[in-house]
Parts: sequence; structure tokens; C-alpha cells
Amino acid sequence: MQTSSDAVQDFDLMLEAYGRLAVTGALNLQRGQRLLVLGPLAHGGVSLEAAPLVRTIVAAAYDAGAPLVEVLWGDEALLRARFAQAPRDSFEASSRWLADVLAAHVDAGDAVLSVYANDPDLLKDAPPDLVSALQQATARSVRPFRERISRNATNWTVVAAAGAGWADKVFPGRPPAEQQACLWAEIARLCRLTHASPAEAWEQHLDRLANRRDVLNGRRYSALHFTNATTDLTVGLPAGHVWVSGRSETGRGTWFAPNLPTEEVFTMADATRVEGHVRSSKPLSYGGTLVEGFSLRFEGGRVVDVRADRGHDVLRALVATDDGAGRLGEVALVPHSSPVAQAGVLFYNTLFDENAASHVALGSAYRFTMEGGESMSDDAFERAGGNRSAIHVDFMIGSADTDVDGIGAGGSREPLMRGGEWVA
Amino acid sequence: MQTSSDAVQDFDLMLEAYGRLAVTGALNLQRGQRLLVLGPLAHGGVSLEAAPLVRTIVAAAYDAGAPLVEVLWGDEALLRARFAQAPRDSFEASSRWLADVLAAHVDAGDAVLSVYANDPDLLKDAPPDLVSALQQATARSVRPFRERISRNATNWTVVAAAGAGWADKVFPGRPPAEQQACLWAEIARLCRLTHASPAEAWEQHLDRLANRRDVLNGRRYSALHFTNATTDLTVGLPAGHVWVSGRSETGRGTWFAPNLPTEEVFTMADATRVEGHVRSSKPLSYGGTLVEGFSLRFEGGRVVDVRADRGHDVLRALVATDDGAGRLGEVALVPHSSPVAQAGVLFYNTLFDENAASHVALGSAYRFTMEGGESMSDDAFERAGGNRSAIHVDFMIGSADTDVDGIGAGGSREPLMRGGEWVA
Repeated sequence: MQTSSDAVQDFDLMLEAYGRLAVTGALNLQRGQRLLVLGPLAHGGVSLEAAPLVRTIVAAAYDAGAPLVEVLWGDEALLRARFAQAPRDSFEASSRWLADVLAAHVDAGDAVLSVYANDPDLLKDAPPDLVSALQQATARSVRPFRERISRNATNWTVVAAAGAGWADKVFPGRPPAEQQACLWAEIARLCRLTHASPAEAWEQHLDRLANRRDVLNGRRYSALHFTNATTDLTVGLPAGHVWVSGRSETGRGTWFAPNLPTEEVFTMADATRVEGHVRSSKPLSYGGTLVEGFSLRFEGGRVVDVRADRGHDVLRALVATDDGAGRLGEVALVPHSSPVAQAGVLFYNTLFDENAASHVALGSAYRFTMEGGESMSDDAFERAGGNRSAIHVDFMIGSADTDVDGIGAGGSREPLMRGGEWVA
Repeated sequence: MQTSSDAVQDFDLMLEAYGRLAVTGALNLQRGQRLLVLGPLAHGGVSLEAAPLVRTIVAAAYDAGAPLVEVLWGDEALLRARFAQAPRDSFEASSRWLADVLAAHVDAGDAVLSVYANDPDLLKDAPPDLVSALQQATARSVRPFRERISRNATNWTVVAAAGAGWADKVFPGRPPAEQQACLWAEIARLCRLTHASPAEAWEQHLDRLANRRDVLNGRRYSALHFTNATTDLTVGLPAGHVWVSGRSETGRGTWFAPNLPTEEVFTMADATRVEGHVRSSKPLSYGGTLVEGFSLRFEGGRVVDVRADRGHDVLRALVATDDGAGRLGEVALVPHSSPVAQAGVLFYNTLFDENAASHVALGSAYRFTMEGGESMSDDAFERAGGNRSAIHVDFMIGSADTDVDGIGAGGSREPLMRGGEWVA
């Protein structure tokens, strides 16, 4: 029989295990590295609600030999206050220092850990033009940091904490405490914290993903073709594209796992060779606004038509952020048998939803998804098909009825996924 | 009869009134100014516990036309984790960016508001040498910011929020919710939030303090002489010293009130002319460590002997931070009839305790307490008797049995306070 105080203790142990796994099993923090803990940058940082998890992360980081851990916190209530009361012409004002601090931290070889706990629908009542102005000003401002991350210039990772607003969206209509408990239970299970040794379970899982990655790298496809009832999309893959799964490596040779959990294998799309139409299979939460039931049409790699049942203005502004924002930078394959998909929960959170379904990303391509990409000039990277943009926004296109074919250089075609599952 | 929901509503209204008074009545935030909200810098920023007050401050700031409010938060639990688990040789590591961010913010003409909510005894179990290493590294790092503040380079203010650890220290042995309610009630009363118009009550009070300031400025004393059963201290006042009370002014001509509440009139001590011995009349909370029952002996302006019943090592290290840390930079007069003293509560918090008793400060002198001090070179300021240091730490010496004489340039002596009260 479990008493209430057992439950509290179990919860504390789970948070400790998550903190430890994040720092040692995912971030792989090195002795002597400083750590910066972040959250959504347009929110200023980690939600205050994530404090219990952040405390276990910080303790684990000091325990692993960090000389200093700094946390940039952001309070969602302050963002709401800004939208409610700040001068209407002030939404392009962004932090004068945040971008420099982030870039300098990476340049010093220190580590970055992001914690997402945010209400996916925080800004549903805010004027879309102000939301877009803020998102775009932030994206432009922190672009040098994002570019460093996209080159794996240091070890970084992303984890999540069950905030109240988020839990309410995922499990509506239940008492608040139960909502958060349910969401924490899903996070714990999907991060394999319920295993006797989460670190070992995680290692084995990363090995399995690496096998799938190796198979795909052997195929050298020229494109992928996605089809289902509402999608017919061909995504070109540039010569030299590299499939990547859970483990990455910094230029200094430190391995790390950038996402916890992760179920995907991914590579870059050729920014100039995407054709057809695609309908989102899950809602997208972008900067506190939900975009739902949306479709995009691509010609010559570029988005030429945007439709959405909800959040249309925000999506249109997103795609117009810069030239690369209307092109794809990533394509990722996730089978419908993924534990996240099998959970049957719509998370309204990219870290989880992108591990439940195959997806693509608008905006920048990761340098490490192209052979030698980390050391290419910007021009050479673009000429090779790599996309550059201030944004990188994943959205889900896979489902239980999605087929994917791999298309070879000579036009050969082989089935890769059928009904959302790997064929081989 | 007051119901529980009335009490909640009253509390919310009080927080709103406090936030509004802090932003408009104390900070005097100007339309177009950005605002940075801080807390104790060695803690990384404002305690998360202060979030309810911070939210009313931020709403008031946006309402007053701030284009952007940024809050640097610090979680006391993270500081405890650092002392518990970080490598023992890492306590001189401080933020690489905080000092530059603070200085650049001031240089851009933007405003600074500090919120103190901290547990005065947070680090009671931490090794004193590590506490001192951290405090000194922080003080040295942020010195350029403190120097700008000491010149009133921009408008700044300090307010307080009733954190749980602090409330437990002030009202021990009561239930936690009652402790915080009692401390909030004292804060509200002493900040005059219980008046029909707090802004008006505050203005009238500042006018009364200004009258006292004007009287003292007319006297041109050469020194003050403090005596009681355990103190016999002569504090020299340099030629050109300026008495200051609640209202200050930036170089741009913006008035502001740096402390909320404030009951003091203060000026600079002559760093080279302090003689005698003084015993603290209240404990000092410095960076999360309490120093209690301490005495200092001065010769030629410099501390030559340090004794303390508790916190001796931290106090000794504090005084040894740099040359100016063992000399006085401020002397302030507060009558025993001050509402803060009459509250009969020991706050263990300088913002309140310094408004309950006459006090002096170890470390840097405020430039604005000397005629033309803001534009003097560092050397000229020191030659004129102004103290320079990375620290500025007030401690209380006044009490109901303290007499203060003013000593004129020719050695004349007149009674200024008797039994802790103004003579005239």
C-alpha cells in the first residue's frame, strides 16, 4: 500500500533521477564546465514552475563538478503582463544582453540545458501581430546562439517539467493536482525513469536508434516521399546529408544527447527540393500560441501556400520571418510504435510530440546533418542545400496511415515506412 | 466581518499598491525607460518567493510606459545546493556577464529595482571561508555597477517581500502562513500602504525628512560623537559633506526614492577620521550569514579590532575585502521614535533595521553625499575624505540610550540626539 507520504517521496526520487539523467546521461556535463539553464528565450527563461526539477538539475551539475550553475528564469505571468499593459509599439524591444551572454557562454566551452514547462496556449488572447513581433525580434536577436547550437559548438540538451498550464492543456477537465501528476507520470515513463537503471535503459535505447541511423546512412537516398490521405510531399535530401539519432558530439569530441526523450532519426532537407502539399498531423505550439489543422504547399523548396484552422496569422508571420523560414531544414522519421505515440497523449509540446510522429522543420538546418557542415562557410552550406534562418520550428506530419518511400539517386524507389511503421 | 476571500483580496490589493508605489512613488520610472528587477547579487537575483510582488511591480512598470522589463531571479535553494555540493575550490567563480549587464543597463539610462525577500540566515551551516570567498568575488565583480549606483547614475530603489525563511526568523515559533502574514502586515504598515493614499502619505513623509536634512546641512559639523553604555565613537565628517534623506536625483534630473521604507538622514563619514569603539545594536545579515553581538574599534579611520559573538570569521573577512572595507563610508541618524523602531520587531534585514536605528556603513561612500562628488575623480574623492570599496554594508549602532553630539569645526559641541531622540 502506498501512503501519501510515499507518493511525495516517490515524486522527489523521480525528480532526482530525472535531474541526474539530464546532467550525466543527456548533457554529459564535463567536470569544470559551467552550466547555463534556460527556457523559452522569448519568455526570458525557465518557468518558475519548473523550480523543483531545476533544483535537482543544479544539484546534479555541482555534484558532477560544475564550478558555477546559472539559471535564467522567466515568469509566464510577466509575459502576460507585457501583452496586457506594455506600450503597443514596444514589442520589438528585446533584451540587449541575452544574445551576447548566450553566445559567449558557448564560446567559452560551457554547457547549456533548456527546461520547458510552458503553457502551450499562454498567449491565446494576445494580439497575433504583437506575438509575431516579439517572436521575430527574439529569433533575430538570438540567432548567433542558435547557429552555435546548430553546429554543436558545445554540449546542450532539452528536458521538460509539468507546468500547470501545460498539464491543463494535455489533461483538460481534471483537478489541477491530478493533471500535473498525470503529466509527470508520462514524462517519467517516456524518459525511462521508471526503469531500475534509467541510465542503462537510455544507453540501450540510444544504441537501437543508432542502428537505424546507420542503416539510413547506408542508403544514400536522394529524397523521401511522404503520402497519406491529406499529404503528398517529396522532400529532397542533399548529397552528403547525414542521418543523426539521439547522440551527438561537440567539436571537442564530447558526446551528448540533445533531447530527453528522443525517438527520432533525422537529417537535413534540401532547401531547394521540396515539392507538394502536407497537412499537419498534430497542433503546433509556437511561442505560446497554438496553430492547429494547418497545411502547407511547397514549390521549388519554398512554401507557396499556408492554410490553418487556427493560428493562421502567427503561422504566416512565422514563415515570413526571413527567406529560410519558408523552407525546410530538417526531416525526421519516427515510427507509430514509438512509446510517445503509443502513449496516445497529445502533448502540445514539440519535445514530446516530435517523438510521436515523423516531422519536418521550417527554418535552419543543423550543420552536423551534412558531411563537413560544421566547418563550411555559410555560402558553401547553402549551395550544398543547407537552409539558414533565424527560426527552427518542427511540425508533425506522420501518422498511423502515413507511407514513406526512399528515392534513390537514379529514381529508384523503395518502401521505408508503411502505415507509420518501419518496413525493415 | 472579514471572510477568508476578503483577506485574499485585501492581500492582492496591498501587493498592487506596493508595486505601484515602488514604481511610481519610489523609482519614479520614466516613460520609455527599461527596468531591470534584481535581488541580492550573490544569490543571482530576486528570490522566486517574491514572484507575487514582482508581478505587480512589472505590471505597474509596463503601465508606466516601460518598453521592456527584465527580471534576474535567484533561487535560494540553488545557493544552498552550491554550498552543499560544488567543488570546494570553485567559490571564487562568479558570473562572467552579470557585472557587464548591470553596468551597461545603467549606462543606457535605464532603471533598477531590487526586491529583497531573502532568508537572513540562509547560509548558517555553510563553511564561513566559502561564504566569504563567494561574497568577495561577487563584490569585486559588480563593483563598477555599485559605483554607478553610488553616483546616482540612474534612478534605483529597493523594496522587500516577505519570504518564508525571512518571516520564520522574524516571527519564530508561529505557523508558517501566519509568519508571512505578520511580516507582510509590518511591511505594508511601514511603507504606509495602509493609508488612503499611500503616494500622498509617502510625499508628506519625504517632506518631513527633507526638513531635518536641511537643518543638518545648515550646521556644517566637523564630526558626530555617539555614546551609550557600550559605544564611544567619533565619526569625522569631511568638509563639503552633504546630508541626504529619502529623495535623490539622477544626473539627468529625475528624482527618486532609493529605499522604501526610509526613515534616515545620512551623509558620508570621513574615511580617515573615525576614532573609538562601537557595539552593534542589532544583528547584521550579510549575504545569508548572521553576525551578532559584534564590536569594532577604530583608529585613524580604520578598523583595528573586530569581535563578534557569532559570525566572527565572516565579519573579519568582510572588513578585509579591500582597504576601504575597514573604513566607514556612511553615517545615518534615525530617531528611536521611527515607526520601524516603534514596531518593536527585529527584522534581520538592513532595509528595515537601518530605518529603526542610527547606523554607519563599512565600505564605499555615496558620491552624492559630497558637494560635487559625482564629478570628482576617484583620487580627488578619496583626498576629500570619501571612502572607496567594493562593499557597502550598513550596521546599526543606535538605540534608546544613545546620545549624539554634533561637533563644530572649532571644537564646539551641541546635543543632537538624547536617549535616541532628536533634541530639536
